Amino acid sequence: MKPGRSTLKIGELATGQDLELNLFEFAPEVLTGPSVYIQANVHGAEVQGNAVIYQLMQALESCELRGKITLVPLANPLGINQKSGEFTLGRFDPITGVNWNREYLDHKLDIASWYQGHKHLNDAELIAHFRALLVERCYSRLHEPWGITTGHRLAVSLQQMGHEADIVLDLHTGPKSCKHLYCPEYDQDAAKYFSIPYTLLIPNEFGGAMDESIFCPWWQLSEYLATQGREIEVPVSAFTLELGSQENVDLADALVDVEGIMAYLSLRGVISERVEPAEMPRYACYLKDYKKYHAPQGGLVEYKAKVGQPLLAGEPLANILRVDRYGEEDAIVPLSLPVDCVPVLHFASASVYQGTELYKVMTKVFAL
Amino acid sequence: MKPGRSTLKIGELATGQDLELNLFEFAPEVLTGPSVYIQANVHGAEVQGNAVIYQLMQALESCELRGKITLVPLANPLGINQKSGEFTLGRFDPITGVNWNREYLDHKLDIASWYQGHKHLNDAELIAHFRALLVERCYSRLHEPWGITTGHRLAVSLQQMGHEADIVLDLHTGPKSCKHLYCPEYDQDAAKYFSIPYTLLIPNEFGGAMDESIFCPWWQLSEYLATQGREIEVPVSAFTLELGSQENVDLADALVDVEGIMAYLSLRGVISERVEPAEMPRYACYLKDYKKYHAPQGGLVEYKAKVGQPLLAGEPLANILRVDRYGEEDAIVPLSLPVDCVPVLHFASASVYQGTELYKVMTKVFAL
Amino acid sequence: MKPGRSTLKIGELATGQDLELNLFEFAPEVLTGPSVYIQANVHGAEVQGNAVIYQLMQALESCELRGKITLVPLANPLGINQKSGEFTLGRFDPITGVNWNREYLDHKLDIASWYQGHKHLNDAELIAHFRALLVERCYSRLHEPWGITTGHRLAVSLQQMGHEADIVLDLHTGPKSCKHLYCPEYDQDAAKYFSIPYTLLIPNEFGGAMDESIFCPWWQLSEYLATQGREIEVPVSAFTLELGSQENVDLADALVDVEGIMAYLSLRGVISERVEPAEMPRYACYLKDYKKYHAPQGGLVEYKAKVGQPLLAGEPLANILRVDRYGEEDAIVPLSLPVDCVPVLHFASASVYQGTELYKVMTKVFAL
Amino acid sequence: MKPGRSTLKIGELATGQDLELNLFEFAPEVLTGPSVYIQANVHGAEVQGNAVIYQLMQALESCELRGKITLVPLANPLGINQKSGEFTLGRFDPITGVNWNREYLDHKLDIASWYQGHKHLNDAELIAHFRALLVERCYSRLHEPWGITTGHRLAVSLQQMGHEADIVLDLHTGPKSCKHLYCPEYDQDAAKYFSIPYTLLIPNEFGGAMDESIFCPWWQLSEYLATQGREIEVPVSAFTLELGSQENVDLADALVDVEGIMAYLSLRGVISERVEPAEMPRYACYLKDYKKYHAPQGGLVEYKAKVGQPLLAGEPLANILRVDRYGEEDAIVPLSLPVDCVPVLHFASASVYQGTELYKVMTKVFAL
Repeated sequence: MKPGRSTLKIGELATGQDLELNLFEFAPEVLTGPSVYIQANVHGAEVQGNAVIYQLMQALESCELRGKITLVPLANPLGINQKSGEFTLGRFDPITGVNWNREYLDHKLDIASWYQGHKHLNDAELIAHFRALLVERCYSRLHEPWGITTGHRLAVSLQQMGHEADIVLDLHTGPKSCKHLYCPEYDQDAAKYFSIPYTLLIPNEFGGAMDESIFCPWWQLSEYLATQGREIEVPVSAFTLELGSQENVDLADALVDVEGIMAYLSLRGVISERVEPAEMPRYACYLKDYKKYHAPQGGLVEYKAKVGQPLLAGEPLANILRVDRYGEEDAIVPLSLPVDCVPVLHFASASVYQGTELYKVMTKVFAL
Repeated sequence: MKPGRSTLKIGELATGQDLELNLFEFAPEVLTGPSVYIQANVHGAEVQGNAVIYQLMQALESCELRGKITLVPLANPLGINQKSGEFTLGRFDPITGVNWNREYLDHKLDIASWYQGHKHLNDAELIAHFRALLVERCYSRLHEPWGITTGHRLAVSLQQMGHEADIVLDLHTGPKSCKHLYCPEYDQDAAKYFSIPYTLLIPNEFGGAMDESIFCPWWQLSEYLATQGREIEVPVSAFTLELGSQENVDLADALVDVEGIMAYLSLRGVISERVEPAEMPRYACYLKDYKKYHAPQGGLVEYKAKVGQPLLAGEPLANILRVDRYGEEDAIVPLSLPVDCVPVLHFASASVYQGTELYKVMTKVFAL
Repeated sequence: MKPGRSTLKIGELATGQDLELNLFEFAPEVLTGPSVYIQANVHGAEVQGNAVIYQLMQALESCELRGKITLVPLANPLGINQKSGEFTLGRFDPITGVNWNREYLDHKLDIASWYQGHKHLNDAELIAHFRALLVERCYSRLHEPWGITTGHRLAVSLQQMGHEADIVLDLHTGPKSCKHLYCPEYDQDAAKYFSIPYTLLIPNEFGGAMDESIFCPWWQLSEYLATQGREIEVPVSAFTLELGSQENVDLADALVDVEGIMAYLSLRGVISERVEPAEMPRYACYLKDYKKYHAPQGGLVEYKAKVGQPLLAGEPLANILRVDRYGEEDAIVPLSLPVDCVPVLHFASASVYQGTELYKVMTKVFAL
Repeated sequence: MKPGRSTLKIGELATGQDLELNLFEFAPEVLTGPSVYIQANVHGAEVQGNAVIYQLMQALESCELRGKITLVPLANPLGINQKSGEFTLGRFDPITGVNWNREYLDHKLDIASWYQGHKHLNDAELIAHFRALLVERCYSRLHEPWGITTGHRLAVSLQQMGHEADIVLDLHTGPKSCKHLYCPEYDQDAAKYFSIPYTLLIPNEFGGAMDESIFCPWWQLSEYLATQGREIEVPVSAFTLELGSQENVDLADALVDVEGIMAYLSLRGVISERVEPAEMPRYACYLKDYKKYHAPQGGLVEYKAKVGQPLLAGEPLANILRVDRYGEEDAIVPLSLPVDCVPVLHFASASVYQGTELYKVMTKVFAL
């Protein structure tokens, strides 16, 4: 089947022009599987997710679908169109500086009170009511009488769509990065289906990102119910897929990620077809073991450690070149780390201030 | 007396050049009064505080000082030198987007545990130990083995100096703004001394700003001690002074604010001279009643309401001009608010996206 | 009569969205007067021209029109929507750095050759053919097989419309500025009609701006014909109106400029109504006497000289505050100029690098 | 020998801090060879030249030098430290938008007049006087009473040093680029010595760049003298070396370019050692055949053609992905060129506006 297409207004520019999203929707007549929501390019420079959505839609056209799939490429038109020099200044709102992926609504629910009024419901009803609550709160937020910020409006509009789905995939990239997955700890098995070698297992803490905005309320509910002696598995799945480096479009590589996504959709019964996950080694670490290393000084950087390749303690990470100190001992300062790790991403520019986040590395890595 | 002068390195640029602060210090030989720390221009475009520091130092030269006064103008050289077009892009780190005034360290102290080990101390000792703890934690933070971000290094370097003082003044401005003061609720009386007509009374919640980073730990300590039956007044004072609009230097107007600061320093016994506060009406509201109004649509803005002048419910706040809709009814959309208020600041640019924070207004205003 | 409205596509964003202009056109059935083209906001922060267009359209609705009037507000949607911090980074293309008002096409015509083939034509025919040539060259430029830059496409699209008209008004503002007019020397009398106190008389040199792109080819033609013993007055008029400061919308002040524009349109017979120019002193200088003064050092700036107010040689222009040098003689450096002048505009920010263009001033000013 | 080191002030920041360059100088006691001036990183993101200077200085330490060599790494500290998001906004002045490499002084000499007063001199004297003239004019420019812009001050300070030398190398990079050389037509043979496969042969036209600012006046002199029946070869050599892609430091690759530079210095007798140029194919085209291809529409870009690899007419250059048009024929638009070429560089970002300069390609390429 072909996807349907619609538009959603999510803002207005200074010229008065509408900011609109293009929504694509595969809506099978009979719904027997979970529903899916996939978005890409919330950070303006992180474009590869659009290629994945393109290729995924091509693949889905020939599938037998059991659940509805909504896809939103180019999800942040303001960020995507914000150029600064030869790059896309798409990581944060150019006016406020707020990271576009930290703008989602923290519901801050009083779950105990809510449950008090709903505990008579059976599981399916409970889930339906809770979902309606989440959607409604997004709606209310969007209609605040004194208004909300540009970035929050965008984020909550996306989040509202996400709450309607059972499975949410948010497609990002790193700066210079290998592929990696943010996966909530309760959903660790899912990480074996995507074509992504490295997984970060994240706890139940809301930091403002899309995936957290989707699963945190449900995870809290599930944990609260457990204290009340009622076991309900978290009924939603939400992941952030980091598809390599920003400022890159690669239609062939997108097919690799489509294969992984299809394997996961197959597992979950969204499509009838059986798609096996790629055979590949997959590794993970806990988010608390995902470490940032900051430039210990200003200077030019020669990045030595390759992303996605294990690095032993003491092996060369990077060199800081301080040509202004030519002739002194510290004109070239070799950097290394005191622990074994896998470098996952590094900074995009080759010159840094002291304190610039130079590398992010996984430590205490284990096989999945 | 003349102030001494020293420098403090707080970072390194990509070229390797040091980022340095100029510190000025009035250090009387005999210290009988509280110590003071004053900084200006943490946001790059908010320059008027430097003029106030300049004039204040002139005034202090002829005073009899009882307490040490440290002054740090141009406190954020990276932000001040960051131009974008004809303006200073000085509100947030250009790399990360993080607001320079949200980078201070949240100590997240376990005060109960700490007190358990220190409750045998008398009040003066307790205060000295707690202060040492705060200073030491800043020091440790600055020496993290994996480094810290550029902005956090700057902030914690400033904060460490602030913790050493009894009184901290952080000099800012708004975008297009009247003068206003952020004052913690416990210190409300202090607001009657500065030459500032409007005061926001803030609760004991850490949001990342300098003033909060100074008083929050003490306020928490004080509140905890109260639960233990021990009464200690919060022994530090910390305020943010918003000295009008950004991108403006006015040496004559700086004298007005010097007069207010001197009145406060006189009250607190930092100087021996008796300086009376200016006679002027002063108003306040609680932070929860300080409201943001966001542009309900994109377009050009004619700001009608003047900052610092009371505005009745329904009176004209601004017009949105949508010349693209010429001939339609909504080519000019008049905006107003449903409550009486005092507009305190408005956005600096005359064109806005939907959601841009157009005005911030005080509601439920009362006389101090 | 009401204006008609249409749109013109002038580009595409990275998201694929069209960049479109809204064109308004007053097109009387019988054309007995010259045609007019008016645009505003080519520099993104210079918004007041839109308010003038709005008020002018209101005024024109009740006029008897003899010539066609085309109005293009919000003429640079890319620049207008380009925010950087709380300001509009609208002076130059964010990718290339090229000033949006230096992107117009330099026809570089070989007028002698062209005239050789057209000298048999009478004056009216000659003018018609030359105009067609200018329009056609813009069209060809827009259809270059290897493409043209984003900014050049915008500019040449506007220029093509301008070449179709007899009178072209380009509405700008300065940074912090009084009203002033750029007027070609051959059209000096026109300056007595606009409600603008200061006029810069510009020579026949193409620097890339809209007004020059319109009148330079005709002025060259006129001068060449004079060498051939044929006298033709330059048949087009083109002016840049600088309507005060950027980032400002003032609907009431717009009426003042509408009055001046109407007086000029009345003079030229575009409208039947008799509109007298405002009685006001008007002054001018030649462009060569319009001087830039650059900051002799870095520092904070207190602007002392008011724009639009004559300043005698040696009177205070500005102070450079160098609070880092507190206690030294040059902590405050007063600046002045060695000649009498009228400051017309100054830099928008209150802190400058050495070399920042601090003020632009008219010297050798004379009454018009 | 070791190089000497000194600093040169070339500006002041808004905080008052000096902008300084670090100059390194190899100054043999006996000068029998030509003098050399080498600078790097005038565009802030183009850092590889610093690595080349570093490695070159290492290599020169063990050479026998006949001529003086001055090296200026990190030649534009303002541009290098100007970050925007994760990149360096270093191509143009952030205030004015002017390209840092278009700020050099156009001497606009009246060579005929000058020669009239100097024609009695012999060749060596003539050259010495002309050189002194160029240097003096830079000096005068730097001391203009009304000041000059920040970028012009930087450029003319560099240019003044360049005029003192016989050989000038300006080290740049492209965005995503293969190595290429800008070489004046009169000096074509020099291109066979650098380790650079592609050369652009440039004519005697001043466009504002460093290399042109050095050789154009001499080339004009030489051409004028030829009209007077006096033959003098252009006595200076000036090249721009484009060392690959920006935002990249590679100390090993720097050695490759050092070898080429050493071969050229050997040829010219700056060093006594015999260094042979690398054996490699080298190609060139004339600047008029170096073509820009602009994005015919907005969208996401998959760059297909590799820089430095010949591309036949019609072969895939890039794809424009318009995922918003999914399901339509033009959701992916393949781009190609109508002529054989060598793509030399492409845009750094993977999303473009219509008109963005997508690729620059050499056409009509011939072997050197």
